[in-house]
Amino acid sequence: MTLVLKDKLIQWRRDFHQHPELGFLEMRTASIVAQTLNELGIDFEIGTSVMDPNYVMGKPSDEETKAHYLWAKAHGAVEVYLDDLKDGYTGIVATIDTNKAGPTTAFRVDMDALPIYEAEHDSHVPVKEGFRSINNDMHACGHDVHTSIGLGLATLVQERKDELSGIIKIIFQPAEEGTRGARSMAEKGIVDDVDYLIASHIGTGVPMNHFLGSNNGFLATTKINVTFKGVSAHAGGNPEQGKNAMLAAANAVINLNAIPRHSEGATRVNVGELHAGSSRNAIADFASLKMEIRGTTSEINDYMRSYAESIIKGAAEMFQVEYTLETVGEGRSAKGDTTLAEIVTQAAQSNGLETTIEEDKPSGSEDATFLINRVQEKGGQATYSIFGTELKAGHHNENFDIDEDSMLPAVNTLFDTAKRLSTQ
Amino acid sequence: MTLVLKDKLIQWRRDFHQHPELGFLEMRTASIVAQTLNELGIDFEIGTSVMDPNYVMGKPSDEETKAHYLWAKAHGAVEVYLDDLKDGYTGIVATIDTNKAGPTTAFRVDMDALPIYEAEHDSHVPVKEGFRSINNDMHACGHDVHTSIGLGLATLVQERKDELSGIIKIIFQPAEEGTRGARSMAEKGIVDDVDYLIASHIGTGVPMNHFLGSNNGFLATTKINVTFKGVSAHAGGNPEQGKNAMLAAANAVINLNAIPRHSEGATRVNVGELHAGSSRNAIADFASLKMEIRGTTSEINDYMRSYAESIIKGAAEMFQVEYTLETVGEGRSAKGDTTLAEIVTQAAQSNGLETTIEEDKPSGSEDATFLINRVQEKGGQATYSIFGTELKAGHHNENFDIDEDSMLPAVNTLFDTAKRLSTQ
Amino acid sequence: MTLVLKDKLIQWRRDFHQHPELGFLEMRTASIVAQTLNELGIDFEIGTSVMDPNYVMGKPSDEETKAHYLWAKAHGAVEVYLDDLKDGYTGIVATIDTNKAGPTTAFRVDMDALPIYEAEHDSHVPVKEGFRSINNDMHACGHDVHTSIGLGLATLVQERKDELSGIIKIIFQPAEEGTRGARSMAEKGIVDDVDYLIASHIGTGVPMNHFLGSNNGFLATTKINVTFKGVSAHAGGNPEQGKNAMLAAANAVINLNAIPRHSEGATRVNVGELHAGSSRNAIADFASLKMEIRGTTSEINDYMRSYAESIIKGAAEMFQVEYTLETVGEGRSAKGDTTLAEIVTQAAQSNGLETTIEEDKPSGSEDATFLINRVQEKGGQATYSIFGTELKAGHHNENFDIDEDSMLPAVNTLFDTAKRLSTQ
Amino acid sequence: MTLVLKDKLIQWRRDFHQHPELGFLEMRTASIVAQTLNELGIDFEIGTSVMDPNYVMGKPSDEETKAHYLWAKAHGAVEVYLDDLKDGYTGIVATIDTNKAGPTTAFRVDMDALPIYEAEHDSHVPVKEGFRSINNDMHACGHDVHTSIGLGLATLVQERKDELSGIIKIIFQPAEEGTRGARSMAEKGIVDDVDYLIASHIGTGVPMNHFLGSNNGFLATTKINVTFKGVSAHAGGNPEQGKNAMLAAANAVINLNAIPRHSEGATRVNVGELHAGSSRNAIADFASLKMEIRGTTSEINDYMRSYAESIIKGAAEMFQVEYTLETVGEGRSAKGDTTLAEIVTQAAQSNGLETTIEEDKPSGSEDATFLINRVQEKGGQATYSIFGTELKAGHHNENFDIDEDSMLPAVNTLFDTAKRLSTQ
Repeated sequence: MTLVLKDKLIQWRRDFHQHPELGFLEMRTASIVAQTLNELGIDFEIGTSVMDPNYVMGKPSDEETKAHYLWAKAHGAVEVYLDDLKDGYTGIVATIDTNKAGPTTAFRVDMDALPIYEAEHDSHVPVKEGFRSINNDMHACGHDVHTSIGLGLATLVQERKDELSGIIKIIFQPAEEGTRGARSMAEKGIVDDVDYLIASHIGTGVPMNHFLGSNNGFLATTKINVTFKGVSAHAGGNPEQGKNAMLAAANAVINLNAIPRHSEGATRVNVGELHAGSSRNAIADFASLKMEIRGTTSEINDYMRSYAESIIKGAAEMFQVEYTLETVGEGRSAKGDTTLAEIVTQAAQSNGLETTIEEDKPSGSEDATFLINRVQEKGGQATYSIFGTELKAGHHNENFDIDEDSMLPAVNTLFDTAKRLSTQ
Repeated sequence: MTLVLKDKLIQWRRDFHQHPELGFLEMRTASIVAQTLNELGIDFEIGTSVMDPNYVMGKPSDEETKAHYLWAKAHGAVEVYLDDLKDGYTGIVATIDTNKAGPTTAFRVDMDALPIYEAEHDSHVPVKEGFRSINNDMHACGHDVHTSIGLGLATLVQERKDELSGIIKIIFQPAEEGTRGARSMAEKGIVDDVDYLIASHIGTGVPMNHFLGSNNGFLATTKINVTFKGVSAHAGGNPEQGKNAMLAAANAVINLNAIPRHSEGATRVNVGELHAGSSRNAIADFASLKMEIRGTTSEINDYMRSYAESIIKGAAEMFQVEYTLETVGEGRSAKGDTTLAEIVTQAAQSNGLETTIEEDKPSGSEDATFLINRVQEKGGQATYSIFGTELKAGHHNENFDIDEDSMLPAVNTLFDTAKRLSTQ
Repeated sequence: MTLVLKDKLIQWRRDFHQHPELGFLEMRTASIVAQTLNELGIDFEIGTSVMDPNYVMGKPSDEETKAHYLWAKAHGAVEVYLDDLKDGYTGIVATIDTNKAGPTTAFRVDMDALPIYEAEHDSHVPVKEGFRSINNDMHACGHDVHTSIGLGLATLVQERKDELSGIIKIIFQPAEEGTRGARSMAEKGIVDDVDYLIASHIGTGVPMNHFLGSNNGFLATTKINVTFKGVSAHAGGNPEQGKNAMLAAANAVINLNAIPRHSEGATRVNVGELHAGSSRNAIADFASLKMEIRGTTSEINDYMRSYAESIIKGAAEMFQVEYTLETVGEGRSAKGDTTLAEIVTQAAQSNGLETTIEEDKPSGSEDATFLINRVQEKGGQATYSIFGTELKAGHHNENFDIDEDSMLPAVNTLFDTAKRLSTQ
Repeated sequence: MTLVLKDKLIQWRRDFHQHPELGFLEMRTASIVAQTLNELGIDFEIGTSVMDPNYVMGKPSDEETKAHYLWAKAHGAVEVYLDDLKDGYTGIVATIDTNKAGPTTAFRVDMDALPIYEAEHDSHVPVKEGFRSINNDMHACGHDVHTSIGLGLATLVQERKDELSGIIKIIFQPAEEGTRGARSMAEKGIVDDVDYLIASHIGTGVPMNHFLGSNNGFLATTKINVTFKGVSAHAGGNPEQGKNAMLAAANAVINLNAIPRHSEGATRVNVGELHAGSSRNAIADFASLKMEIRGTTSEINDYMRSYAESIIKGAAEMFQVEYTLETVGEGRSAKGDTTLAEIVTQAAQSNGLETTIEEDKPSGSEDATFLINRVQEKGGQATYSIFGTELKAGHHNENFDIDEDSMLPAVNTLFDTAKRLSTQ
């Protein structure tokens, strides 16, 4: 059967890879997850049942959502589930009750792709093997793999339920990219009953056949869109009548970078996009920024956020323009529980992987941290684990690719973890 | 015949209005001008014969030029002339030699439209009368009228050549918007033999049935595109490896606005567009500015230009990024000759217009100033005249429209001017 | 007698020159003016009788005022008047009533010196003739001459009262430098009964033996002191705890210079001094700016002022620091009455001077404009006249010097003006 | 004898405390050190024999040095040594040769005070006990204590030479504040023959009766003075003729703060002082900055330094002004040798102190790092140790004070360390 599961994992992964969907647009992906769970006889909740819309951030516009709905429909989405998914609330939580007393253990995977145009050369495996993306987006961070692992785990759990006790939840999260999707699931309460949470990722520099039990170095982050709205005027004829949104934006950009360093830990700030004005000879009446801040702790990130608001407000004030701030993504810092990390690590070892229990090096940001924090606040334990693989290129690169042999050990490790936790 | 000419003027104008073409793309317009001149039996030169490519500024890309060529071909351009026009050198100079001793008198009109989407409501005359623009551009500054006046003048001059002596030139200039086209014609020497030059414009606030002999208030100007090229890097992972083009651009924008005022006259500076970066979490590796500077004299404009270069260079230096400056438009200051202005004004009076001889109030910019300066440098006289009309909305507004009754008096005034100058 | 007056003028001027006093510190000067008026038998009001303290701007601190009081006392001030002057309200208004029906005509002169260290070389006349400044300040703008002219005029008016009718006022104003003193006299109402006001200056580029009846080109101006107050912190240990006043100030300085040009006339802005911080390794907790703005009209100056406040407020907001603005000087634009200018000009001509009636070229700023505006608002006429002289160096230069022969014609012209106005 | 030494330590410390001397001005202090060494019969080198003038940074001006020389002479300096010290090269290296084979072990103490006005209230011990500073400076960082410990150690070593083998050096370093003095001693080669170097400090948060064997968290730092030199012009009359040094400085300050964070470790940047311009109505023709940068490694500090130079150069370029950079202080990062730290820690334990071997928390900067790096480069071992004490207020605070009981255990620990190293 394991042999069969390995093939299934590859089949799922390649299908998802070929049909990448951006955050909050994972309609085809989620519909296939739903159908698969249904075929396995697993209960699940979907859409706004598992996501609080008030905490959804950075959601695409209604037009984009509608357009993608038509795309999904035309490209193999399972229609029966599209009603629940068509507004872009694409999360799913599968629940398998062993009907034996025991802990509630949750596993979290994510499903979204990136707006990256996938490499087209023949040495890129998805090209060679015929599963390159059919649209302009790309699974360049391995979430296609994660979703497949989630389905593989569901399969094993359901088939070998008798080896487990308590309740197993598998969380299929939308929109991890931009750290946008997890918070709405956490706020909905989907992990409030969870005793153990294992979120996991593939790659990130961990070598093939290695495993990291607890990655703690997440930078807390906030992604913010800023707009400045001024008044246009002819730059030659009456410049004094304009309210220059571009000047406000330019001042904001510079001074955001000048927010003081923090003595308690590392900070980051970046304005990645700035667009202002539409005509050479007119005072720019609008400007928009896409920015992000980070900090090694949520407190430091809050410091950056609060300072950024002062900068933006002051810059607008200087040029008497209006401004708006919209939070379009958020991640927190997190520290995994060592006890739990050790158990997952033992499971990995017994599945033939070399292991490291914990690592604290600051790295990127993740919104699984919302789920981790929530579980810990409610008295549970949580960890964020990494399954190593051989990467063809870095994450978010057009040549990104993983070694599909790393999927089955991941599924087995997670199942084994569930077993070990059954008896805790 | 005058009645017939009036109808012709309207017919030409409405055709041009319906088929607006941006600067250096006036292929259809120029081909119709050429055909009309040919039908009248008037000699003319076209394309690079009357334009020096070295001084063409802000020309659209080859792709845009080629695409527009296809559009022109498909929308009524006269094919026989397209070979000369298809590369975007769309100027024409008509020459009518009376074969009698006398001065060389030149009249200059322009032909280009603006990237403005024309109003669609029924009270907009071009909609009501069925000659609204068929594409996304618009003759929102009256150059359709100017081209028609040029053709009307050609008609009169050719028909009543016996009333004149010397040589009459009619200059059909491309790309006045953005002050891009005149310099290449001046540098080519097309006015080097000219004794009198009358450039003219319709509207600009002069009322219906009024005429201004010499508008002297042009601000010298330079239009510049700036790019900054840096190095991208992950904003969370290794910000120190980036070279931030956005920060260079932001500093440039602010400090360009801070160039010191000049005690000898007014200055202007504007960055009308700024685009930088392409991803929230990456250091922006490029930024582009569209800017312009102005001054009440060419010297003051040169001061602004030189200062702007220092600012841009320094801003690039600060962040170790590369930069480029491209001049994409240029206008000079100019002072019309009062003697000539008086003659044109008398011609206007004898055609029933109320008149003002001169006005010095700083206003916009014009590249006819290159032709005016050139004529004066070579010992000739020049003036820039305004024919009043009733405007429905300001220039460059989507509701811009003129009163077509103002065209014929303009043509007659210019012809009468030619007559008066014949005997100077 | 005229010969004697010429000597007296020189004697006064050299004494004042040798004892320069800065604005609101003209205690010695004013006491000598008072004594002289008293000796002439002329009534006068002094101190807060002619100045409204609410409108005094940029007054030195109490410490400086007290220290200078001791200096004045020790250097020849007339003690009996020091009580009225010791707090720095150093204005005087002399009133000579002819007791004949007639207009009220006022003449305004100023008394203050500059914080400039006077040249010490032998070719500098004050050195050669032994009246170089005995302190570190200098009459480098000719106000010593003005005060002397005022006293000369008082002498003539009193002696030849029978040639005049109506009332003659001579205003000795403090603190013209920095445009600080006139407003408090205007607001006190000292010119509310004035039919004709002649303010005058020596030099400013008008040649020897020339006279300009009405100089209209004053730039309205506001002088402002700004402070930013933040919070210090160790720059290495906990930079996040600081509120950086220097960064607020730096942003303010740059963006003040970037206030948009005004289409209705010239503007100026300058931050002349900036001081921030006191320790290399501490976040700067304070910063101070000395700035000024100008405009060709009072309205344009108001525009600059209002914009400047936005910039400063916004810059403070960006870094969460407190700020204060203090107006320490103010001048308005003004336009002299041509009718009056012509009368003064005729007086100058009949005293042997070559004349120009009016000139509009934008130049510096003057707070006599407050008095001029006030007279005109109340229905009177006013003008600002310039008496030419030969300058050894420009105003505010350490080598500044005038030709003393230009004083007597100035006094005679002003007296003659009073005579001519007596019969209007 | 130990009792006597304790009294001597207090006596020395109070004398130094009462006569604080700033960096490179420790003439009185060094002369007393020299005299004491001489009385003990210890050889020493002084002045430029132990300092390379080429690497002296941030030295006071000749005027200040001369003035302080007179002060020192008048306040108890030992005249015979002043010749070597009067130019401000105030370092001393004592050398005690046991004439037995063994390692060379060096101990480094520093001698300079801070420009802080010492507290005057009675609860401040130096006031109560009558040894408050007699000038405007203050030993607010404990270097008075360090110098005394150095003398105490010299006393013990000389008296108990027979218990030791090898060579003992005691380095009395000037100008640690601002990290200015150590480099010139390192470059002179004074530690090139050293096998073991122990630099030490009192306080810094380590509690009374505690000891830290190796403090590794020094931030590398560079202290830089920057000047901008422009051209003045009248801000109203001809602003275009100025070259605005203040605008260059303001842009530099902001963008220095915006240097990108570094992913390999913490950075710091601060401009602590900015002074620009001297007259409200003149374009500022000069500006000066006092700044510093820091990084957790010397490499990161170099990155900051290099970036800072680009910023400053670019800012000058923008406004066409000249600039200069002067390095006035420098410290490096350092990592103590654990083997040596353990030995010193054992010595501390055997003298009754509680101990910690190593600590890595980033803290301030120290130029002993130059000596530490040099020793390690040459194959020796080095460490930076902290002796705890009870502080009345933080370092650099006007109420700073230590517990004098912490001095003797420090001396004994260092002597004991020398003993233990004798047998390595």
